[in-house]
Amino acid sequence: MTRAYNLSAGPAILPIEVLEKAQAEMLNYKGSGMSVMELSHRSQYFEEIIEAAEANLRQLLDIPSNYKILFLQGGASMAFTTLVMNLRKTGKVAYDEGGNFGKKALEAALELKEAYDLQVDVVASSAYANYIHLPELPEELSEDYDYLHICSNNTIEGTQYREFPNYEGVPLVADMSSDLLSKPIDVRQFGMIYAGAQKNSGIAGLTLVIIREDLLNLNADLPVIFNYNTYAKANSLYNTPSTYPIYIHKLVTDWLIEQGGLEAVNQKNIEKAQILYDYLDESELFKSPVKKEDRSVMNVPFMTGDVDLDAKFIALTEEHGFRNLKGHRSVGGMRASIYNAFPRKGLEHLVELMKKFEKEHQ
Amino acid sequence: MTRAYNLSAGPAILPIEVLEKAQAEMLNYKGSGMSVMELSHRSQYFEEIIEAAEANLRQLLDIPSNYKILFLQGGASMAFTTLVMNLRKTGKVAYDEGGNFGKKALEAALELKEAYDLQVDVVASSAYANYIHLPELPEELSEDYDYLHICSNNTIEGTQYREFPNYEGVPLVADMSSDLLSKPIDVRQFGMIYAGAQKNSGIAGLTLVIIREDLLNLNADLPVIFNYNTYAKANSLYNTPSTYPIYIHKLVTDWLIEQGGLEAVNQKNIEKAQILYDYLDESELFKSPVKKEDRSVMNVPFMTGDVDLDAKFIALTEEHGFRNLKGHRSVGGMRASIYNAFPRKGLEHLVELMKKFEKEHQ
Repeated sequence: MTRAYNLSAGPAILPIEVLEKAQAEMLNYKGSGMSVMELSHRSQYFEEIIEAAEANLRQLLDIPSNYKILFLQGGASMAFTTLVMNLRKTGKVAYDEGGNFGKKALEAALELKEAYDLQVDVVASSAYANYIHLPELPEELSEDYDYLHICSNNTIEGTQYREFPNYEGVPLVADMSSDLLSKPIDVRQFGMIYAGAQKNSGIAGLTLVIIREDLLNLNADLPVIFNYNTYAKANSLYNTPSTYPIYIHKLVTDWLIEQGGLEAVNQKNIEKAQILYDYLDESELFKSPVKKEDRSVMNVPFMTGDVDLDAKFIALTEEHGFRNLKGHRSVGGMRASIYNAFPRKGLEHLVELMKKFEKEHQ
Repeated sequence: MTRAYNLSAGPAILPIEVLEKAQAEMLNYKGSGMSVMELSHRSQYFEEIIEAAEANLRQLLDIPSNYKILFLQGGASMAFTTLVMNLRKTGKVAYDEGGNFGKKALEAALELKEAYDLQVDVVASSAYANYIHLPELPEELSEDYDYLHICSNNTIEGTQYREFPNYEGVPLVADMSSDLLSKPIDVRQFGMIYAGAQKNSGIAGLTLVIIREDLLNLNADLPVIFNYNTYAKANSLYNTPSTYPIYIHKLVTDWLIEQGGLEAVNQKNIEKAQILYDYLDESELFKSPVKKEDRSVMNVPFMTGDVDLDAKFIALTEEHGFRNLKGHRSVGGMRASIYNAFPRKGLEHLVELMKKFEKEHQ
């Protein structure tokens, strides 16, 4: 096998051009005689990398100057907790529970309820429906909420917001781990956006945070290491950051710019997903469990309804060079995670296999 | 330049064999058709990597079965805070302030003083001497301390403990960021050992924790993401860990085993450092600021006493392929960080340059 069709939900497929570049520069970065892994985070070489990564991100997402970019560690799961510590003001916080990760973010807030005397309100939830559709968001939201937390794309369930609500006076805080950099967004709609990098933005070990300046230092009494302002003031170099994941993020964002930016990438992503959804809608065997208007462009769960057939189909795809099509244990069936770097021809091939399999199992 | 003599204090030089292996496996890990960066942390491929990394570490340090190994994120700086949260019992904690990083660990505990009603005692300090020697540790320590925190090797000041104290009933907690895996240690002497991996153990983005089981769940009410027991129970796969830094750690520990283990590596390290210290002791121009018996085998600060001469010498070494010899801003002069992967011939070359420079500046 030369190159697998890797359908993993994350860590996930990367552009081959990024891997080739990392490989070529591995032993000797720009004639320095050092690998990027060996660069001091205080060296000019690394400063250029982290500055270029930030500039790329600002360009791709058109990030206004009153937003800071932080390169953190610990994953979105760490941010579930630290965002509460950083963003609370009155202590009244709102959560949209639209999927498994939205629920985890909510649970992280509930853990801190007593310590910070929080009022944690679930203002929208589709838990009752096992998250097979997005929750209905309230028409209005009281201005005294410190923030509303939302997960933009549900990796496990395969649902995705196409539009975001705007509640006067309430900062929107979005976990965009699985769709950041897959399409254009209006950053001004958000107080804070965060994402584990290991889907569309790079590799595990880097957490991206984009945060409006006025939300940066609401809790100055936090331990410095948990305080987002620590990293904002130090351009993410307060302590040693995860240097190599930042370098890969820089290469990935270089690649996105070369692809023509996020409008172009989004167009390709929509077309890719459509290939699969079109077939799911006509198939008698394979079904999408997700409500049509909420379907994710990034993660596509589907199933036959028969666990043995599902297993047989997954085995068939493995023979044809596909990897990680197995669905999340909480949903079952199959799940195709088709991030930016997943090639269109991989989807065409997958649908061919589905058609063939369906014919054989009518 | 093909390969620099990289004297960086961290992120630091890696064995060329590790870089070559990472390069060779970059596009296709073991015929998987995927890069290690693209592997799901739940895949068998990655499970084998993380299990091998743990087995290597256990073998190299002879870690007893009642100690758990955790692969965390956030660096030693994050651990400064989380170790207090995890290890406090009565709330009475002791600190050895023997250098800049020991001081930072102490400050992290002081930040939590009010929140946890801590009594934070500095039981040894060489702050008065600007840390040019190690502090004198007390003969005895009251048993009611939850732990004594110590930094085994002071990266900035160039001091290093050769032996560790044993206080009945008080767990010793050691930040070994800059000398873990450079020599054999008796893990049984410690309650917890932790280290940022970017010196002798791998690359930035991975924090190693070795912790005695009975210290793992003293504070079950902590947010799960801060609780070391969360990671212990899940074999460090509670959420997505920094997969690529774990892979590099695995390659580095493979290399250490190939070198003959830590006895052999330590012997080489001592010999390497001796080359430099021998010359410093006979030189009229270059001086070590550190008390002889406390000198580090890993980090060697030295200076001429004349900032212009220091700068001139650093420029000379750069011409000869050395990088990052400049001392830390708080100490000045030069600092040679000569971790495991730094070659002996680099030190011989450095001393040649020192001799030549001294002759020219008598």
